[in-house]
Amino acid sequence: MLKPEHIDYKSKKDTPEGFLFSTAEAAIKKPGRKDIALIYSRKEAVLVGMFTTNKVKAAPVKLDMKRIISGKGQAIIVNSGNANACTGKKGLDDAKEMTELIARGLNIKSSLVYVASTGVIGVPMPMGRIRQTIPSLIGGIGKASLEDVARAIMTTDTFPKIISKKIKIGKSICTISGICKGAGMICPDMATMLCFILSDISINKIALSKALKESVELSFNRLTIDGDMSTNDTVLAMANGMAKNSQVLYGSNEYARFSKTLIQLTDEMARMIAYDGEGATKFVEVSVREAASVAEAKKAALAIANSNLVKTAIFGNDANWGRIMAALGYSGIKMREDKVDIFFNNVQVVRNGIASGNDKEAGEELRKKEIKITIKLKNGKALANVYTCDLTGDYIKINAEYRT
Amino acid sequence: MLKPEHIDYKSKKDTPEGFLFSTAEAAIKKPGRKDIALIYSRKEAVLVGMFTTNKVKAAPVKLDMKRIISGKGQAIIVNSGNANACTGKKGLDDAKEMTELIARGLNIKSSLVYVASTGVIGVPMPMGRIRQTIPSLIGGIGKASLEDVARAIMTTDTFPKIISKKIKIGKSICTISGICKGAGMICPDMATMLCFILSDISINKIALSKALKESVELSFNRLTIDGDMSTNDTVLAMANGMAKNSQVLYGSNEYARFSKTLIQLTDEMARMIAYDGEGATKFVEVSVREAASVAEAKKAALAIANSNLVKTAIFGNDANWGRIMAALGYSGIKMREDKVDIFFNNVQVVRNGIASGNDKEAGEELRKKEIKITIKLKNGKALANVYTCDLTGDYIKINAEYRT
Repeated sequence: MLKPEHIDYKSKKDTPEGFLFSTAEAAIKKPGRKDIALIYSRKEAVLVGMFTTNKVKAAPVKLDMKRIISGKGQAIIVNSGNANACTGKKGLDDAKEMTELIARGLNIKSSLVYVASTGVIGVPMPMGRIRQTIPSLIGGIGKASLEDVARAIMTTDTFPKIISKKIKIGKSICTISGICKGAGMICPDMATMLCFILSDISINKIALSKALKESVELSFNRLTIDGDMSTNDTVLAMANGMAKNSQVLYGSNEYARFSKTLIQLTDEMARMIAYDGEGATKFVEVSVREAASVAEAKKAALAIANSNLVKTAIFGNDANWGRIMAALGYSGIKMREDKVDIFFNNVQVVRNGIASGNDKEAGEELRKKEIKITIKLKNGKALANVYTCDLTGDYIKINAEYRT
Repeated sequence: MLKPEHIDYKSKKDTPEGFLFSTAEAAIKKPGRKDIALIYSRKEAVLVGMFTTNKVKAAPVKLDMKRIISGKGQAIIVNSGNANACTGKKGLDDAKEMTELIARGLNIKSSLVYVASTGVIGVPMPMGRIRQTIPSLIGGIGKASLEDVARAIMTTDTFPKIISKKIKIGKSICTISGICKGAGMICPDMATMLCFILSDISINKIALSKALKESVELSFNRLTIDGDMSTNDTVLAMANGMAKNSQVLYGSNEYARFSKTLIQLTDEMARMIAYDGEGATKFVEVSVREAASVAEAKKAALAIANSNLVKTAIFGNDANWGRIMAALGYSGIKMREDKVDIFFNNVQVVRNGIASGNDKEAGEELRKKEIKITIKLKNGKALANVYTCDLTGDYIKINAEYRT
């Protein structure tokens, strides 16, 4: 297990005003752990989201995508152990029923309830056990923490992912908290597996939506574990206004500060997911600089971050930069081989496309737990960073045995 | 080691008229094996080729791409242990010198000599040892077999890849032989790592070029081991006309028969490469059927064949078809989830997008050494097959330790 030491875990218990949590055991995949959770806001909140761009979408994603048009929400029910994907009409009925049971228990409209699921694809939801568990989930409201929710939604994750930040708007202190789960089937152009961002800030729908989109583009869309895009990726952001600040509008100075904070928050979460990539022994940041455009920099960085050969070399402490050159070459960007510089942390291994003779020192750098690979293309001024991890025998083991 | 049992190895010694071979040890990466080889045709031959589409091209690829414009050739020098890629101007000079030394030894023009290299990227060629070895390579002409050449060009391959076929044109029996190497850094839209096709058929340049292009598209371009495209991929086809048939021209009946034979030959070689994928325990064929177009079928099949999650599940004997659905969904093709059928060999696991309840039987199928995954999209009549292998802990081990 690789855990980011730099994250301030002390702050994680500061959750925003008016949000209550509950977790329970529905033994969805197997018994022995809390695997279902409820997020509830005392007040109806502004709610926006982003979803997987996979054409095969899980039932909860399909349901949420319809409800989110209203821009409003008050509760989210989440489960691990079953993705409720590729489950046909029954899957849609099940997702809907989950929200209706919660709505009835909370005495709110079911259109204000969202659902997210993660786990095995293609297995019907065990609705009998879920129906039995929902009363205790409702009854337990306020007895669990946001960290408990983060724990309940874990699948192959080895630690719960939670982060909080504060921002002062006028005289009000607003809190923004985020939890997420990752580990496998993580690839850009979706969001990430599951992420919930909760805040007591007062902000209108357009501003929250714009800020979320920007922060996801700069974080979860620049993260890859294995290049496999999930059917269930969901990011939901709720803001209930209970911090009583004057409402943040798109384009204002307050918006700019909120957006910056949200970017920091999602960036930290994306890093946590990379740290906890399945089987990872190393956190890897790929930074492509001096590119012709951000799009080209991102494309090149993703090609490197998705290369099995680059990632196994990093696992093996081998500064095999030839594999990075090869990945750059097939990434589809414009490039000149004889201009490329490559660094592992601060050790330069390639100067103008050829070896600079520091492979041994670079190999030593690779023994560290955090690796930054910097590539300078000398084609312009744009840059992009992508987070990933190494590819190890444990990744194979986890994924060969996932359903057993 | 997984070796295809169905290939007829008896035929492999029937090499075409007029080709002579030589191998030697230049200790390019380390001593202890033959790592340099020469293919020589007694008569100047028609020579055509295909090369990697990677923007980072190895020096020998750059050299060959210029020389091949002539459509003529008489000798190929090949080495393993060093790719001569990312080696700058010195690399180009070295590649050129290798061909010049051979040309001088054979007393032919250097423009008729081609060079191919495979191995580590970014390390200068050990030209001292290569210069010392070339006289014995020239002196040994005729003393080695084509299989010896196939053996000398192996890197992480576990068995030499060689195949021969015969075709009767008029009263002449023509032989076509192919050797190749694969194992890692194998991904479509290049050719494959290295492949040499030799024939004594009389055929003109256009016909040989068209037939090669078609056969590569249907074989090496439908093969993926790890999704990493190499800097060195080279397919060269030589036809020296020594079978004395009346020359085969593009569009004739003889051309159609030759083209069909060449497709069979390259198909067998592509299969051999998949069988011998790094760390492979299983050969996997992904067949996408009833697609709207061949391009869509190929795109979908490649997305599945490149999915780490699909390939680790196969290694683990787990018929986790949800990962196949997810890969279809992100492949970029048009599809309707509720129309998809999926089979592992003859066991149907998905009917109209949902589980058909045969995961256990399918898991048993996965214990076999040859797996065919069939996907029916019910969107049209086109189909495409792609070859790959499972992803195992040995792949990680091989690639984490490749340079050590």
